[in-house]
Amino acid sequence: MERLPQEIIARKRDGYQLEREEVEAFVAGVVSGGFKDYQASALLMAIVLRGMTPEETGWLTEAMMRSGRIVDLPEISRPKVDKHSTGGVGDKVSLILAPLAAACGLCVPMMSGRGLGHTGGTLDKLEAIPGFSTQLDDAAYRKQLQNIHQAMIGQSVDMVPADRKLYALRDVTGTVESIPLICASILSKKLAEGIDALVLDVKFGRGAFMATEADGRKLAESLVAIGTAMGKPTSALLTRMEQPLGRMIGNSLEVIEAMDCLRGQGPADLMEVTFALCAEMLRLGDLEVDAAAAKATLKKAIDSGAALRAFRQLVEAQGGDPRVVDDYERLPLSEHCCEIGVENEAPLYIGRLDARGFGQAACVLGAGRSSMDAVIDPAVGFELLKKEGDRVEPGEPIVRIHFTDDKKLDTVVERLRHAIGLSKKPVAVQPLVVDRITG
Amino acid sequence: MERLPQEIIARKRDGYQLEREEVEAFVAGVVSGGFKDYQASALLMAIVLRGMTPEETGWLTEAMMRSGRIVDLPEISRPKVDKHSTGGVGDKVSLILAPLAAACGLCVPMMSGRGLGHTGGTLDKLEAIPGFSTQLDDAAYRKQLQNIHQAMIGQSVDMVPADRKLYALRDVTGTVESIPLICASILSKKLAEGIDALVLDVKFGRGAFMATEADGRKLAESLVAIGTAMGKPTSALLTRMEQPLGRMIGNSLEVIEAMDCLRGQGPADLMEVTFALCAEMLRLGDLEVDAAAAKATLKKAIDSGAALRAFRQLVEAQGGDPRVVDDYERLPLSEHCCEIGVENEAPLYIGRLDARGFGQAACVLGAGRSSMDAVIDPAVGFELLKKEGDRVEPGEPIVRIHFTDDKKLDTVVERLRHAIGLSKKPVAVQPLVVDRITG
Repeated sequence: MERLPQEIIARKRDGYQLEREEVEAFVAGVVSGGFKDYQASALLMAIVLRGMTPEETGWLTEAMMRSGRIVDLPEISRPKVDKHSTGGVGDKVSLILAPLAAACGLCVPMMSGRGLGHTGGTLDKLEAIPGFSTQLDDAAYRKQLQNIHQAMIGQSVDMVPADRKLYALRDVTGTVESIPLICASILSKKLAEGIDALVLDVKFGRGAFMATEADGRKLAESLVAIGTAMGKPTSALLTRMEQPLGRMIGNSLEVIEAMDCLRGQGPADLMEVTFALCAEMLRLGDLEVDAAAAKATLKKAIDSGAALRAFRQLVEAQGGDPRVVDDYERLPLSEHCCEIGVENEAPLYIGRLDARGFGQAACVLGAGRSSMDAVIDPAVGFELLKKEGDRVEPGEPIVRIHFTDDKKLDTVVERLRHAIGLSKKPVAVQPLVVDRITG
Repeated sequence: MERLPQEIIARKRDGYQLEREEVEAFVAGVVSGGFKDYQASALLMAIVLRGMTPEETGWLTEAMMRSGRIVDLPEISRPKVDKHSTGGVGDKVSLILAPLAAACGLCVPMMSGRGLGHTGGTLDKLEAIPGFSTQLDDAAYRKQLQNIHQAMIGQSVDMVPADRKLYALRDVTGTVESIPLICASILSKKLAEGIDALVLDVKFGRGAFMATEADGRKLAESLVAIGTAMGKPTSALLTRMEQPLGRMIGNSLEVIEAMDCLRGQGPADLMEVTFALCAEMLRLGDLEVDAAAAKATLKKAIDSGAALRAFRQLVEAQGGDPRVVDDYERLPLSEHCCEIGVENEAPLYIGRLDARGFGQAACVLGAGRSSMDAVIDPAVGFELLKKEGDRVEPGEPIVRIHFTDDKKLDTVVERLRHAIGLSKKPVAVQPLVVDRITG
């Protein structure tokens, strides 16, 4: 018996597990209009408050994934493995990881989103490279994957339309905060890419969507369980997002830092997370079985220059100017910079670099967007001269600000000062990769 | 600081008490469009699942009441007291109670709704009377209240627009079942009438919106608390709605039964509820202080013919044919009738007359509407020849069906058979008025 939308809503409201057909009717109705927006949002709120079982979440994920075109890549013989991060500040891991993984034998068909709010987006970063296009048609995309085993594009509008509609609705109805809904949104998009396996970087902390380790762990476990149940080997790293990742925040600056990493000159925290995620990808792709061997393979790809060459190929294949790789000045860079520090008479220690505060300051500066129609200035950003735990000698600067115009500089500086916490005593830094959750 | 709709939604989602300003912003936004339908429905679902404190419910009621025109009746010197029922089958109490209360010294400015689903509506019943109009303009309404101290009309569209919008939304989003929302809907409409006091008939049981006594009691307590807190003396009777009230179901038939009651010839259960509600109205209107005195006053109004005269005045004032009072044949009545009973060889007892089943059968017959645009046939209906607890001798009929055409008769009979439960042993009947809840 086909149920009316209000009957499906009432069942979830009353705490029942929905049937597969009901979940499918919801997703189909959201796309077709058979479920009105006001009915969808009522059901979303009931899901936020009543939860969903793993079974229901799986049905939701699959129905959303099937709501549009699904990419199938039978012509690719390499293991197709992608990575997804729940989002952080200074998180340019994808830019390093895709060419690195490709250099190690994987195929990385990566579809990403744009940044919104305090976290940056991979597409925005790549577009800092002159000429780089993140929109490829299907034929060009497939050809590129066959030729250079990696592509980094935006998802085309005919894919996962249910997620697009639901996400827009959740954003304005207070229904974002729900593990089943987050899970289904992430996995439906990633699994529509036609991948064989998926590695997730689930972040928690001040700068992450999930504030606590416990919530991050719940999300990671749910993602891994659902992905695995859907027949795709899935694993997750639980990583701390308290301070920005690496030293650069801002689009050109992050491209530069990614290239530094591919040259073997990256900051330790960024390399740690990138290597850990990449090793997991190699494992799921059956290219490496143990962590030490994977790390050696990755290191070799960096040291030999293979990973950097793969990045140059990526830039060239997607219409970008490959000369940026050897000449960072070809990226849009700001003409002005200034530094902020503290007036200290004795040495101090960096106790806190609040990732969210830095991310929000980056939006004010113009490096990120606070609404989807805001325009980004790729040139501006922050360079962290110190990170948490570092000692600051009297007079030493902590952050370098790269700016285009000084109109908002006072506000930015004020925000940064709030985001920096100093300590008279040495500060212990907590480990970045907290756990690995496998299916 | 003004909060965005999604921020208000998120606060209720997270279980906080909303601030008065937030509740007011919600109601104003629902009417203005500042709160989109999909945002309103998400908040409604959060309210259903998180609840509202009495304070919040009061703010919601007041904001809804103030969303449109509020009637003020300073020219009326009599105590203005109204009654509202949460709805039942065969519930024609208003038709008896308004003239009876007016005959006893109250003013009854009653605005009612139409029936939907298995419960009948007062306006539909009154409109069975040839010429009777339930739409009066403000001047005519006031004049009538001054002259005959009673009016029974539909609420004009400029009153309580927030309730109209919210109710339509709740109906299709599974958000009807919420005591705070039901409370605010009922009280905002009633308090916008400009009354001094309000008596509520909160029904529970098979034929009522609230299935259990406990839920009915919760709703009654909440209604009384909010009404009282808003400065209007409010009390409620908790009454059982398991079998239809009285003996008649159907619009003309119920008008006839109401007139029988006003002649002192009404069935006991219907008179019991009517007297109990009317006595409470007299008490709140400060006309009587004790129940026995009130009952004597009411009985006198019936026995003297004053109540029936008041009903005739009401019919005449609102354009109806007053001759119906003495000549029931002037009402639209069906030409055909048939009776149903059971093939019993020994006497049986009526164990159950399922009010909901009778109400639904009445819809099928054409006496009620299952959708707002359905047309009602005032002539058709059921006459209960037996009630719960009654003994049925072999061959005796139980229900008489008054019908216009026999197309749906088989379905109706089948439904009635399901709605009738018989017992070989005598059946004890439970009391109708279970409790009285006062502020």
